[in-house]
Amino acid sequence: MSKGVISKDEDYSQWFNDLIIKSDMAEYSPVRGCMIIKPYGYSIWEKIQATLDKMFKDTGHVNAYFPLLIPKSFFSKEASHVEGFAKECAVVTHYRLKNDGDGNIIVDDEAKLEEELIIRPTSETIIWNTYRGWIQSYRDLPILVNQWANVMRWEMRTRLFLRTSEFLWQEGHTAHATAEEAIAETEQMLEVYADFAENFMALPVVRGRKTPNERFAGALDTYCIEALMQDGKALQAGTSHFLGQNFAKAFDVKFTTKENVQDYVWATSWGVSTRLIGALIMSHSDDAGLVLPPKLAPIQVVVVPIYKHDEELANITGFVNTLKKELQAKGISIKFDNRDTHRPGAKFAEYELKGVPLRVAIGSRDMQNGTVELARRDTKSKETVAQEGLASRIEALLEEIQANIYNKAAEFREANTTEVNDYEEFKRLLDEKPGFLSAHWDGTAETEQKIKDETKATIRCIPLNNKQEKGKCILTGKPSNQRVLFARAY
Amino acid sequence: MSKGVISKDEDYSQWFNDLIIKSDMAEYSPVRGCMIIKPYGYSIWEKIQATLDKMFKDTGHVNAYFPLLIPKSFFSKEASHVEGFAKECAVVTHYRLKNDGDGNIIVDDEAKLEEELIIRPTSETIIWNTYRGWIQSYRDLPILVNQWANVMRWEMRTRLFLRTSEFLWQEGHTAHATAEEAIAETEQMLEVYADFAENFMALPVVRGRKTPNERFAGALDTYCIEALMQDGKALQAGTSHFLGQNFAKAFDVKFTTKENVQDYVWATSWGVSTRLIGALIMSHSDDAGLVLPPKLAPIQVVVVPIYKHDEELANITGFVNTLKKELQAKGISIKFDNRDTHRPGAKFAEYELKGVPLRVAIGSRDMQNGTVELARRDTKSKETVAQEGLASRIEALLEEIQANIYNKAAEFREANTTEVNDYEEFKRLLDEKPGFLSAHWDGTAETEQKIKDETKATIRCIPLNNKQEKGKCILTGKPSNQRVLFARAY
Repeated sequence: MSKGVISKDEDYSQWFNDLIIKSDMAEYSPVRGCMIIKPYGYSIWEKIQATLDKMFKDTGHVNAYFPLLIPKSFFSKEASHVEGFAKECAVVTHYRLKNDGDGNIIVDDEAKLEEELIIRPTSETIIWNTYRGWIQSYRDLPILVNQWANVMRWEMRTRLFLRTSEFLWQEGHTAHATAEEAIAETEQMLEVYADFAENFMALPVVRGRKTPNERFAGALDTYCIEALMQDGKALQAGTSHFLGQNFAKAFDVKFTTKENVQDYVWATSWGVSTRLIGALIMSHSDDAGLVLPPKLAPIQVVVVPIYKHDEELANITGFVNTLKKELQAKGISIKFDNRDTHRPGAKFAEYELKGVPLRVAIGSRDMQNGTVELARRDTKSKETVAQEGLASRIEALLEEIQANIYNKAAEFREANTTEVNDYEEFKRLLDEKPGFLSAHWDGTAETEQKIKDETKATIRCIPLNNKQEKGKCILTGKPSNQRVLFARAY
Repeated sequence: MSKGVISKDEDYSQWFNDLIIKSDMAEYSPVRGCMIIKPYGYSIWEKIQATLDKMFKDTGHVNAYFPLLIPKSFFSKEASHVEGFAKECAVVTHYRLKNDGDGNIIVDDEAKLEEELIIRPTSETIIWNTYRGWIQSYRDLPILVNQWANVMRWEMRTRLFLRTSEFLWQEGHTAHATAEEAIAETEQMLEVYADFAENFMALPVVRGRKTPNERFAGALDTYCIEALMQDGKALQAGTSHFLGQNFAKAFDVKFTTKENVQDYVWATSWGVSTRLIGALIMSHSDDAGLVLPPKLAPIQVVVVPIYKHDEELANITGFVNTLKKELQAKGISIKFDNRDTHRPGAKFAEYELKGVPLRVAIGSRDMQNGTVELARRDTKSKETVAQEGLASRIEALLEEIQANIYNKAAEFREANTTEVNDYEEFKRLLDEKPGFLSAHWDGTAETEQKIKDETKATIRCIPLNNKQEKGKCILTGKPSNQRVLFARAY
């Protein structure tokens, strides 16, 4: 177990927090519920951003930037949206401070805003208010815009990365001429998210749709990807919403169709946030520290020299410089830690804590033998391998590690997804073997709410392409045509 | 003159605004002084970001993210800083809205914050408060952190890109063990900015230092790069501050030196913003639209097919696909505009307005002759050239355009920088031939202020490596050892 990090079996929540602090990912700030993302944590966000941004652009999207502050009245325009977002939000009421004469800085009451401004909790309102000016005809459609931004939701119970008052995210907001096209976009972006989660985060996800209860405020349909964490709780990792014409109606965004008829524009929105970093940590890491999939690791390979005399280091450095060039040509990031202020053992512990996928150790005897010691973070296995062909060996190993981390998470999910047909069994499993519970549900909001109240389990999603199967609702015994996925969730 | 854009000689300020609106760069939002950066404008910001981010990383910096909201009390901790920034700022006082029962959304008075929060106008305070926890010993130094973020200053008179209440920027905040190292960092980052301005924005800049009057609130020394716009007004394009130990003292950030003594940490900060896009537009564009230097143009080459029949288009498309591959291999971005909804003439006007550096037009006769028509945006010259070797020709031309745009701006600045020795002449030139005025100044804040009050001209900077020259202050006649640069400024 790493120093200062509690075991995850002992206290999963504390383990998660310790890990983030000790690995220098993030820390809390003096402002309630807001976090400071430290360089190591931020470098993972940069990798996430770069990868997703390319995927968005490859599917035809462009970036833009809309204001941080939204007039209060905008929140009244879409009825269900106001319920969902107006409640817990940061409100700007004044635009000036002043010195009170005694050296205290106070709010200047003469600088009160006529209309209060809200720090965006999400940008549908300001964006659809803007689209009204951008869209006249079907020729102006589709609009495929994404924004990378900070947003704020005044959360009462916060947790680093998973739920913070301010967080970083991307929000796509698209406008279409037809419902079909908007739905296709919603589904496409869900698939982009699933692809990213599985192939970069090494995180298997269930693609599904939310029940009406769990939909985004203002959406006709919310698609989501749901992942299972190591403590058996589910985590919603991304959502993609079909908004119908709700926002177009609220902000009067009409267009002339090809048939020369006026109609309201169809909308989607979709987003993922710094929460993904929380999911990444929770799903793969262990008591020794982070375990990062190579594709998102800021440092993929670290080299630690083991030497007593400077000439030994010079010898090792020569070898490492060649390796560096070979790896960089393959697009693999490598760090040579030649600090003389730290012992090799301390370095080993540090990179283990930071989740660097591969560690190369080289001593003088290795230089004589033409070998190095390779240590994998995921399996903690070590082997002595030849220096010859090392770059190719590393390249192959990184792929193997990426696959192994994914497979481990997939096996865990498999082992912790259970079909349940009995409510008592359902409740027992939630406590004794938490995970995804696949169960029949009668399709009513009342039943869903009652199960939630009694067990704290929610319907995470109705999986896409769900198998149709006759059954009885686990709570009411009423008939049902398909199983849905329940879990306690973050 | 482009449709809807006034001539810059007629009304420079209106021309600037028209150009931004008509070229789809940005627009004002319903929130006073905040702008919406549209996809075309944002794509230029993305190029600026990517280029600078690489330059920062190449000089050893890493990115991080600090909270948007700063406790009000933090602003009282550094005396000169509070004067500079606490005045015009957005103040968050509440964290909830509620429904008043009549369907109105109002601020919930029960959700009043104990301490008001300020939307960051700049992040020195929150960052130095954080650094206290990061720094114990000289071994923790230097810290070389940069942040890409939005900030807010409640500006009364706003102008798209140049001065908006919310803007996007980067802010570097570094911590050092010695004053010398911090000063070297300040100077290094100024040179990074100057390099970027000259070699990417094609904008010649004067490197200099601000007078005490014009320094950043809390800095011991402010370095800046100053550029001259086409209307003869100066624009500060970037600043780099040596903050001494001011913020370390305000936030009690001490460290143990190598000599085992406690000392306060030395600081720098440096930033550039979306204002650079304003500078880019103002310095190169003309009455027909934007003129973008190839290195920052989102589209470097546009190809417009001229045809009547579909088989002609197919023929042209085949050629363009090959060209595309060749250009992309050279890292050159190309757009093939084969829309059948617009005539070639309309496309020509659109790309002229958007400042695309090179336009390729290809008709059926060209296909027969093995030629294309190449049109440069900067010189508006056209030539018919062979299809053979076109990619290399384009590559060379883009370099030539980049150099030409820079040279034109450098010549303009040269022609509009005047040495003045007489105050009446100084005032006359400001009205009749505005530009940089190089004049002697007695070094006092009083004289500087008086000249500003009387002429609206400020000392833009004391150029680095300034020639030492005996002279008399232009206002007071007192002795002076060097000329400084005056101008009216944005």
